[in-house]
Amino acid sequence: MSKEIKATNISWSVAHVTQEQREERNAHKAAVVWFTGLSASGKSTIALAVEDALFKLGCHTYILDGDNIRHGLNKDLGFSPEDREENIRRIGEVAGLFAHAGAIALTAFISPYRRDRDEARKVVPEGSFIEVFVNCPLEVCEERDPKGLYKKARSGDIPEFTGISAPYEAPLEPEITVDTSENTVEECTQIVIDEFRKRGIISK
Amino acid sequence: MSKEIKATNISWSVAHVTQEQREERNAHKAAVVWFTGLSASGKSTIALAVEDALFKLGCHTYILDGDNIRHGLNKDLGFSPEDREENIRRIGEVAGLFAHAGAIALTAFISPYRRDRDEARKVVPEGSFIEVFVNCPLEVCEERDPKGLYKKARSGDIPEFTGISAPYEAPLEPEITVDTSENTVEECTQIVIDEFRKRGIISK
Repeated sequence: MSKEIKATNISWSVAHVTQEQREERNAHKAAVVWFTGLSASGKSTIALAVEDALFKLGCHTYILDGDNIRHGLNKDLGFSPEDREENIRRIGEVAGLFAHAGAIALTAFISPYRRDRDEARKVVPEGSFIEVFVNCPLEVCEERDPKGLYKKARSGDIPEFTGISAPYEAPLEPEITVDTSENTVEECTQIVIDEFRKRGIISK
Repeated sequence: MSKEIKATNISWSVAHVTQEQREERNAHKAAVVWFTGLSASGKSTIALAVEDALFKLGCHTYILDGDNIRHGLNKDLGFSPEDREENIRRIGEVAGLFAHAGAIALTAFISPYRRDRDEARKVVPEGSFIEVFVNCPLEVCEERDPKGLYKKARSGDIPEFTGISAPYEAPLEPEITVDTSENTVEECTQIVIDEFRKRGIISK
């Protein structure tokens, strides 16, 4: 063989940049912040407001939501029970990658089943998973009904709609609960940010 | 209904933090850097060295590789042609999310098929996808054989092994080519970093 192999030490000992190194650089802890709640409870709205607040505080953060997941990574999935479970599983794994990369990953999905949320919790180290229950009475969500989904669910046009014809399993011990029927978006956001400070995720 | 709905404006107009805002904060462009090449060509080694160099330059970067993908997000996938394609599809989508979050996402997978790599390219805006062909003659890769995979492929213990019993489609117009049989890890890394500067992804 005539080729000189210069890079014989191809298993060259460069280690991955660690999560700790990234956290030190970012000056905040990594975390997965999992918003769960009924359709129209305000998950996305609160998550967006939290992202905005975190960004202004200089944090590295990213939201996974229907907009960027359902049309991309999970576009192969439908709405069967298996596909819904796989949808949440992948979101949990990707959120875990973002946390591993040092970010505060926010997810905003109904994620109605405790088991699925508990699986997502297992992806990251203990203490790094913050479940935020966006609590809001069904009748309030149904009155808001910004996309007309509840109306379609009531008429039977949408089958197995969470809260109407499919169960929503509220978190038993969420790290944070906000109630968008009792507090404004600003107030809910502040509750979340204050809890991040209390838990040492952010220090500013 | 007795509940006062304080957050009636639940479609509160908070926009996502944009990729541009993140890039401005990070002081570098977002990108997907897609390393492709034979097994043992040095993809992971070069990607790790590039990650290390970028981190030292203050960039936000993350590697997707077998370690963090095959045991997590893609643990449901095997090695059938369909599963291999789905494996690469998801990696492309996740790399796209990281780029959208402002990071320089590095991927290190054999990804032998042009079609699959071209699909990954489509996920991000034009100019944001940097294909890095880690070129290395098959005989050199086979001599390295750090995991004994080529030996198993030759004996038939591993079927459809890229380069032996399955095709590797080399990139036709990769943005960058490095040859780990002709250059050291340090030299290859420098070639990649220099090209990032030339393309305006980093300015430091």
